[in-house]
This record gives sequence, C-alpha cells and structure tokens, in this order.
Amino acid sequence: MKKIDFNTSEDMASRLDQQDPLASFRRLFVNTEPGLIYMDGNSLGRLSLESDAAIQSVVKQQWGNGLIRSWGSDWFDAPRRVGEKIAKLAGASPGQVLISDSTSVNLFKLVTAALEYKTGRNTIVSDDMNFPSDLYILQGAVRLLARDHRLQIVSSDDNIHMDTDAICDAIDADTALVTLSHATFKSGFLYDAAEVTRRAHQKGALVLWDLSHSIGAVPIQLDEWGADMAIGCTYKYLNGGPGSPAFLYIRKDLQDALLSPIWGWFGEEHPFAFDLQYTPAPGIQRFLCGSPPILSLLSMEAALQPILEAGIDAIRRKSILLTSYATYLFDQMLEPIGFKLGSPRNAAQRGSHISIRHHDGYRINRALIEEMNVLPDFREPDNIRLGLSPLYTSFGDTREAVVRIQQAVKQERYLHYPQERLSVT
Amino acid sequence: MKKIDFNTSEDMASRLDQQDPLASFRRLFVNTEPGLIYMDGNSLGRLSLESDAAIQSVVKQQWGNGLIRSWGSDWFDAPRRVGEKIAKLAGASPGQVLISDSTSVNLFKLVTAALEYKTGRNTIVSDDMNFPSDLYILQGAVRLLARDHRLQIVSSDDNIHMDTDAICDAIDADTALVTLSHATFKSGFLYDAAEVTRRAHQKGALVLWDLSHSIGAVPIQLDEWGADMAIGCTYKYLNGGPGSPAFLYIRKDLQDALLSPIWGWFGEEHPFAFDLQYTPAPGIQRFLCGSPPILSLLSMEAALQPILEAGIDAIRRKSILLTSYATYLFDQMLEPIGFKLGSPRNAAQRGSHISIRHHDGYRINRALIEEMNVLPDFREPDNIRLGLSPLYTSFGDTREAVVRIQQAVKQERYLHYPQERLSVT
Repeated sequence: MKKIDFNTSEDMASRLDQQDPLASFRRLFVNTEPGLIYMDGNSLGRLSLESDAAIQSVVKQQWGNGLIRSWGSDWFDAPRRVGEKIAKLAGASPGQVLISDSTSVNLFKLVTAALEYKTGRNTIVSDDMNFPSDLYILQGAVRLLARDHRLQIVSSDDNIHMDTDAICDAIDADTALVTLSHATFKSGFLYDAAEVTRRAHQKGALVLWDLSHSIGAVPIQLDEWGADMAIGCTYKYLNGGPGSPAFLYIRKDLQDALLSPIWGWFGEEHPFAFDLQYTPAPGIQRFLCGSPPILSLLSMEAALQPILEAGIDAIRRKSILLTSYATYLFDQMLEPIGFKLGSPRNAAQRGSHISIRHHDGYRINRALIEEMNVLPDFREPDNIRLGLSPLYTSFGDTREAVVRIQQAVKQERYLHYPQERLSVT
Repeated sequence: MKKIDFNTSEDMASRLDQQDPLASFRRLFVNTEPGLIYMDGNSLGRLSLESDAAIQSVVKQQWGNGLIRSWGSDWFDAPRRVGEKIAKLAGASPGQVLISDSTSVNLFKLVTAALEYKTGRNTIVSDDMNFPSDLYILQGAVRLLARDHRLQIVSSDDNIHMDTDAICDAIDADTALVTLSHATFKSGFLYDAAEVTRRAHQKGALVLWDLSHSIGAVPIQLDEWGADMAIGCTYKYLNGGPGSPAFLYIRKDLQDALLSPIWGWFGEEHPFAFDLQYTPAPGIQRFLCGSPPILSLLSMEAALQPILEAGIDAIRRKSILLTSYATYLFDQMLEPIGFKLGSPRNAAQRGSHISIRHHDGYRINRALIEEMNVLPDFREPDNIRLGLSPLYTSFGDTREAVVRIQQAVKQERYLHYPQERLSVT
C-alpha cells in the first residue's frame, strides 16, 4: 500500500472516498438517518439490503407458505451450508465450520472437549485482553469438570498490546489449551496467530482462536495457521443481525477424537431414527445441539454475500486505510485535548476499530450519543471504541466522528452527565 | 363439556366450526394455500400475522434504524420480558421463566445444576416415551460429569401410556432428578404432572418437566404442581417460528442454590462492568448464556399475543373437542382399514395431537404429503401424527385429513413409494 500524506481537511476525506474501490458497497446497507455517524459496526453490523430481502423470503415463503416442508428444503442443512460460507472468510477448507448456538456455548463445548482430549495437561492459557465473556466460560468449565484444571491469565503490560514472547512463555508442558481473541475487543490488538499457534504446538498445546472481532474485517487462515479450533460471532463485521448464531471450527483430523459435552440431536448420527441411545455423528456435525434459530441464521447467511463479493483482501486494505486515517486524525485533533490512543499504532497489529481513551470517556460517549448524533460505544474504564466497518463506513464518516468528538470536548457538552453508569435495561 | 354425538358427515364438521368460539382466530394466521390440510402445528406452528408484522418492525425499525441503541430499549431485557409472557401460560408467578438457547442446551444446564445440587443421589429417572433428544442430553451430562450418575429409563407397556405408579415406583432415595415430557411426542400421552411431582418430592427427588409438546395447548401449573424446573420449545403450539429460542423455569427458592455450568455473560451480575472474574447474577438470570437470537426471539414474542388473548382454558376446550372428534373419525374411517390408534382415548391423558399407526405408515405419510396435499409428520416406526392446533386447525380440516388418509389407503396411493427412508437433507 502506498504511503498517503493525510491532512485534516474535509477535502481529504472526500478524496479518500472518491478513490475507495469499495465505496459502492455502502449503498447495499439500509441507512435511514444520513446525519447519524455510526461507529459501532464492531458491535452490531448494519442491516444489509440482502438480509432485509432474505428475511422477507424466509418468513413469508419458507415459513408462511413452505411450513414444515422448509426443514427439508432450506433449513436442516443451513448450519453446514452457512458454515462453509464463513469458512471462506476463515481460510478453512470444507467440512470444518458449522453454525451453532452462541459464541459462549460454542466455547463451552470446545473447551470441555479439549480438556478431555488433553488428559494429563491441566492448564488453560489466556490473556487479560480476551473477552470477559470467554474467561467466564473457561472459569465455569474448570469448575464444572472439578478436576485439576486451572486458568492462567497472562497480563498485558499496557492494556493495548501483547508481546508474542510473553504469551508463548506462559505455555508449557502442562498447557492443554491456549485460547485468545484474534483481535482483542478493547484495544483491537491483532495477534500474530500463525506464530502463536506454531509455538503453542511446539509445546504440545491445542490452540483455539476467538475470531469474533476479526472475522469479516481481517484475513484469517485457520488451516494455514494450523489452528485446532476457533469460534466467533456473526453480528459484528459479518452484519448477521442482533444475536445471530455463532460459528465454530475444528480442524478435520481432530473432529472424530472430540466429543461435545452437549449431546444434541442435531449432532446425532441419525436424528430421525429417534433411537433412545445417542451415537455421535461423524465429523464436526457432532458439535451441533438443538434446532437453530432459522430467522436469525438465514438473515446472517444473506449478509455474507456482499462481504464475499468484496473479498476479504480488499476489505482489509480499506480497513487499514480507515484505521490509519482515524489514528492520524486522533493525533491531530484529539490527543491535544486530553485523549490517549488505546489501540496499536502498527496497522499489522490492529483490527478494524480504534479505541480512544479519556478519563471522562463515559460521559463523552453519552454526549456523543445523546447530543452529537454519533454512535460509538464505551468499554470500561475509559475506552470509546470507533468501529470502522469497511463496507459501509466512509472516510467522511470517520472524519466527522472525530470532528464531533472534538466539539463535544471543547464545548464541554459532556459535563452535565453524571459519572454513574446507566443500567442497560 | 357436554357430550356431543359425532357423526362422519361434512355437515357435522361445519356445525362444529360454526359453534367454535375460537373460529375467528384462524384468520390471524397466514394461509397461502387454502387446499392444504396442515396437520403439523405440533412440530412447526403456522406464521401469525402478529409475528409477520413484528419481524418487519424488528428488522426495519429496531435493527435498520435503531441500530445498537435497540439493545438498550428493546432487546437486552427481552429474555426476561418474553419469559414472563410464557410464565402466564405455564402457571408461574413472576421471576421464574427466561428465554435462552435451545431446549437441549437448557436441559443440559438444568440437569447438571440439579445433579450438583443433589450430591449423594445418583440416579436420573426418565421414560422411553421422552424425546430422544432429551435422553441424549441426559446421557451426555452423565458422561461429562464422570461421577457415579446413572440414567434409569422406565418403559411404557404399550408405547402409548405410562402408569403413574410405574414411574413413581422407579423413584427412590437415590433419585436426584425425575425428568419427563409433560406430553410425550409420539403418543401425545399427558402426564398427571401434579401427582408425579408430589410423589417424587415425597422421595426427595427434584422434578423437571419438558413442556415442549404441551405449552400453548394444555393448561400448565408449574407453581401449583410444585415443579422444580421446566424447559420447553416455542415453535410448536406457541408458533414462535423455526428454531425460535427455548424457555426455562426454575422455582424461585431454588434459583440461588443452583449454578449454570455455562457461565455466560448475560448471566453475570454486571455484564457491562467487564470484570475478568465471573460472579453469577442473583436469581434465574444466571441461567442466561450469550446474546440471544433477537429476530427469532421477537418473532416468537409476537406469536404469544393471540394465545394469551384466546386464553389457555378456551384453547384446551377446543383441543379436547378436536382430538375427540379426530379419535371418533379414526374409529369410523381408519381403524377398519388397518390403522391402530397410537394415542390415549381418555382426553384427560392426551395432548393436542393424535397418533395413528399403520405398518405402512411411512409410505402413507409420503403419499399424503406428495399427492394428497395433507401435511402430517411421521415418527418411527409406524406413527403418523396429526397435530391439531386449536387457534387455526378447524374441524373441517380435521375431517378432511381423515378423509384423505382413508382415500390414500383405499386407493393404494402409497404402494409405489419405497420403504427406505428419505434422508432429510
């Protein structure tokens, strides 16, 4: 990528948008409020026209008209079919990715299977930048199995980066499993997954990647990395819709050696034989549980279409340009008024959001939402996340977000909000 | 209910429809194919106008326009809010029902929690008429915990009924948990849940009811029964849509004594504090896992509206009349041509479907679907199920189904199909 000399002008943003080879994809997403600057595509992706149309068809044709017949024609195979589409974004050859349950339930299934498989090794290695939701699942699994397992959480020095050596040094002959977020949710730090996987394998540990914050924004090569397992959600950069079901990956030659702890009938060898005794299906299918939520699943399937069409390499190129531009604007316009950058400066170590930190971040975030028509999100204790979703976030959006953040602070628009956190419900 | 002298005439069906106080509800469901006789509402309920409208609004307004803001306004609280609506159909006072995951995952959570709670008792009692999908989960949990647990499956004498004494005699001082389907999926047998719960409690066991085949069709009184736990799906008589998420019930005074094995962040005390260490939320909320599939969940919420409006007692009255009429027609028209009744004759012991058995049931079922425009379903080895869903199944539908079944057999319309089962996919 050639080096661009950014400046802070509106003209610069327009030029970047004019030169953007993915600019036309923006029109494939519903935007009912053009004045709104949406910076939370890393938390809930926008509604695509593809999903909107698919839901109509799934509801009216498949459910309303097809009724139970649609299980045979469109639905029963959907976890596998949609899994194969995600596999293309994850560098996984066929037969290794399925849609099932939530990310949390999938992690639970895989971690208990991994601990059982690695009998004699008792440690799970993770880090303190991982999703707390993942750490909770690990803690619960360790407690449930009630053996000698322990969870070792490696700390980041700066809450932004993790040194590859630091995480790899924590792996030893007792490590059963290393599980990390490929892109961390707060700082957006992106692991060198190939390197960590290689070094973990040298020490005989399994590796599980949580791809929730990278899938759809960053190229992923699970097969090439030699990853053992992976999970991920589908409602962030994949735009699947609120709570759309998650995916899981298990490398081919490990599948028949693992058993899911949840013996679901969709994972049974002959689910419609209704045998009273469970026999696991061969391969990855044994990790399916019960009936998948079809409306949410097929909405998500449709949302993959524009991503596959744009191609993950083009998406990554734009993502790097967006986050680099945002970082440049941060340095010029926000650092001078009290913000600290909460994300890596090296684009190769960064996913598709940047985090900006301010001791009054919580109140500034409220002011942005309630007064400035900007929608970022806030993560404790002081992070405002700006999610840049390459298919619909423009350079103009990115600049406008920074301009409004600067205004909110300079005009002290946030000072009248209380420090106390609002309850979500 | 006054005794009705049925006859087999078309006029009788018309009269029953004219006198049906719930007849007008039929118009609240999408029906694109009036010639089709839909007898599978016990497997996938029809699309209601309420759900159709709700999905439009959830997709276009809440997701498309509201974006991430809708988590705060409409979504985050949905598992609890929708749970309370189902609670009204389950005889549960507030704070005891949640929407979460699939039926299988919910059973897994509850059975592992129950086994842990009942330390020292090692047996789970169930029966061979229960969903195989439930038995699989029980088998998997027993294996995972790797303690001294065992699953005792009580056999039905006739594959239709279970004697209350037979099931209760299997419960003893080693029984940790009794788990049964309130209405069994094949024969439609309906347990005397109050009596079984009472007698199980006398022996110190916990009781978990799977309500999948009764909720929305049969009055349920979880609090009155003294049930400890319950689960159920929402896509059968609740018309929630394909794979809509499931519910779980835990009686109030047991909630804080149980821990879910899957420590999901929606079940954490302060999910948005992002603490690294899990603390379970108080009460039933700790049994939530990850992000729920919102489109499927809110489609289902809307579908509850007509059911709550009709009232479960009126629904049950019509259901009994429908299954009694179907049984009468069976005796007159199907028993003479080789069918055996696979459901209880006593309406008090029967849910809202009847099962008719024939040694060529599989092929007859295929002929009904492919040639006769009737949609029942088939359950091995010889059961054709006729699901009668009171809000939209008419007496005319019921008679027409029996007439076409009789035709299919008399005209030997099924003989050209192979005996081999079609694969679902």
